[in-house]
Amino acid sequence: DPKLKIFALNSNKPLAEKIAAEVGVELGKSSVKRFSDGEIQINIEESIRGDDIYLVQSTSNPVNDNLMELLIMIDALRRASAHTISVVIPYYGYARQDRKARSREPITAKLVANMLERAGADRVLALDLHAAQIQGFFDIPVDHLMGAPLLADYFLSNGYAGEDTVVVSPDHGGVTRARKLAEFLKAPIAIIDKRRPRPNVAEVMNIVGKVDGKRAIIIDDMIDTAGTITLASAALKEAGATEVVVAATHAIFSGPAVERLTNSVIKQVVVTDSIQLPEDKQMDKLQIVSVGPLLGRAITRIQENKPVSPLFENRFK
Amino acid sequence: DPKLKIFALNSNKPLAEKIAAEVGVELGKSSVKRFSDGEIQINIEESIRGDDIYLVQSTSNPVNDNLMELLIMIDALRRASAHTISVVIPYYGYARQDRKARSREPITAKLVANMLERAGADRVLALDLHAAQIQGFFDIPVDHLMGAPLLADYFLSNGYAGEDTVVVSPDHGGVTRARKLAEFLKAPIAIIDKRRPRPNVAEVMNIVGKVDGKRAIIIDDMIDTAGTITLASAALKEAGATEVVVAATHAIFSGPAVERLTNSVIKQVVVTDSIQLPEDKQMDKLQIVSVGPLLGRAITRIQENKPVSPLFENRFK
Ligand SMILES: Nc1ncnc2c1ncn2[C@@H]1O[C@H](COP(=O)(O)O)[C@@H](O)[C@H]1O
Ligand SMILES: Nc1ncnc2c1ncn2[C@@H]1O[C@H](COP(=O)(O)O)[C@@H](O)[C@H]1O
Repeated sequence: DPKLKIFALNSNKPLAEKIAAEVGVELGKSSVKRFSDGEIQINIEESIRGDDIYLVQSTSNPVNDNLMELLIMIDALRRASAHTISVVIPYYGYARQDRKARSREPITAKLVANMLERAGADRVLALDLHAAQIQGFFDIPVDHLMGAPLLADYFLSNGYAGEDTVVVSPDHGGVTRARKLAEFLKAPIAIIDKRRPRPNVAEVMNIVGKVDGKRAIIIDDMIDTAGTITLASAALKEAGATEVVVAATHAIFSGPAVERLTNSVIKQVVVTDSIQLPEDKQMDKLQIVSVGPLLGRAITRIQENKPVSPLFENRFK
Repeated sequence: DPKLKIFALNSNKPLAEKIAAEVGVELGKSSVKRFSDGEIQINIEESIRGDDIYLVQSTSNPVNDNLMELLIMIDALRRASAHTISVVIPYYGYARQDRKARSREPITAKLVANMLERAGADRVLALDLHAAQIQGFFDIPVDHLMGAPLLADYFLSNGYAGEDTVVVSPDHGGVTRARKLAEFLKAPIAIIDKRRPRPNVAEVMNIVGKVDGKRAIIIDDMIDTAGTITLASAALKEAGATEVVVAATHAIFSGPAVERLTNSVIKQVVVTDSIQLPEDKQMDKLQIVSVGPLLGRAITRIQENKPVSPLFENRFK
């Protein structure tokens, strides 16, 4: 039988360690360094001939470097006669460039999918893709995991449930995700309806649904600059929510995000470790839930040819 | 007839301007910026439907960013219905990773070729690839230009020629290149033969050929950290060369390069503008020869379905 091996690149070694621990293996020996001119130098320091390789890399900031590390490592593994190469991408960068919203735009999320396949990936394991359609950008199998059950676990064990709680989608696009979490928590939902009354006038945040007297949980797939989410939080407080917490799978935290979140009415920010946060992006109000066990169990099931969906579907039924 | 348009990305706008001037067109309107999280955002600000596009980008440091800019722009151009997409790559990064020198190494130069093709490039125009074999990594047409005639022009107009001059290859791999320049200058050649007499002993630079009393020109395809070239220069002086100048197409100048060159016996460093040098890498002893006219003329000839080789072959015969 081919041997299962897990390799980590540079974007998120702590998460890769957790995944390996769950699977019950050591991380494969490899190093990713830079030549003097900035080019990536990869060394795989053990034989992988005939092995089933799982390669863990989030294409978070610096996205181009992390993506190239991944592509070059796939190339090296393929040339070193790996049996299969499965790429585990907890955070899939460029996911928001998933359609031509304006003329002459690229569809970079598709370009990245093509690059991964062309380099030699045999399978993708992803988590909360910005749009589920990105699965269709690949011609190889994609296992698409959801973080919502993990976030639900966190909220349930902290007493958020039932009619005292309301799960809020920050926009129309996120309603399905909010519905899912609300089901887990047996809580009602609300939706933020952003509208610009007239051109050149600030947007108004209308709230569709009852939030007065409730603990509001805003859920999104990612927190980037945190602009929308902090405005939405203020609007929820204004509308009578007793507290506002926010939850998201991917903590991008770019630009003014940490400052905005820190200075906002938000009581707590619950995210996963799909993206490794540097020290200066940690906050007192931050709670990090690990997706390591989930990804580890998914790898074990894939390797045993079992479906992975039971890991996150119908868990609360 | 399809219209010829030239677009520049961020790595080397001044060179792209020179190329466009030679062709007699304005650069196409586009912008390449960053989103807050570091992802590349491309805007093509004019219609390119049905046009023949030449896209100028060196994949120099930061190589991964420059490469991704190129790939994303190709994707955008293809989706915007360009007739053809020709990529003009004055400096081709990752060219030294062109073979498996050790077990389990990637062949990144081939990976990059695959990525460019998969993104949608129809043709490549390159300059002094580290190994000519890289042409064979592509299944699309590659026009491979040489910088040596331009460097020869420079040396001829500065009085370097005949038996007073010697062209030196810094290693065995570069002899063909040295031969070429020597032919142009009607000068003899010499070769540096680096040997380690015993393990754990410093390398010795033996010089094969006569350099005593001559002006020595060391020629290489690139100057990276300048380690070899400064050691070779000292050895040449030691052996009686009256002066040492160095010539190379690609000025990478990474790490200690500028310091080493400045403090060396080298009288002059002659390079091309295939890589844009920042202010802090300029030196008094630096001479920059532009490849803009050469690349511009090559584009014009390609567009007229004429061979490009007469631009640099047999020019001195
Ligand atoms: N890295 C990014 N940061 C901010 N906006 C982006 C980024 N990538 C794509 N976009 C834009 O986000 C929009 C898509 O987001 P969404 O409507 O949430 O799917 C498009 O208009 C994109 O131009
Ligand atoms: N960016 C780089 N900087 C320094 N060395 C490199 C770089 N890329 C590849 N190499 C190494 O350079 C050698 C090939 O150079 P060459 O023998 O001149 O073709 C290989 O051993 C590579 O591992």
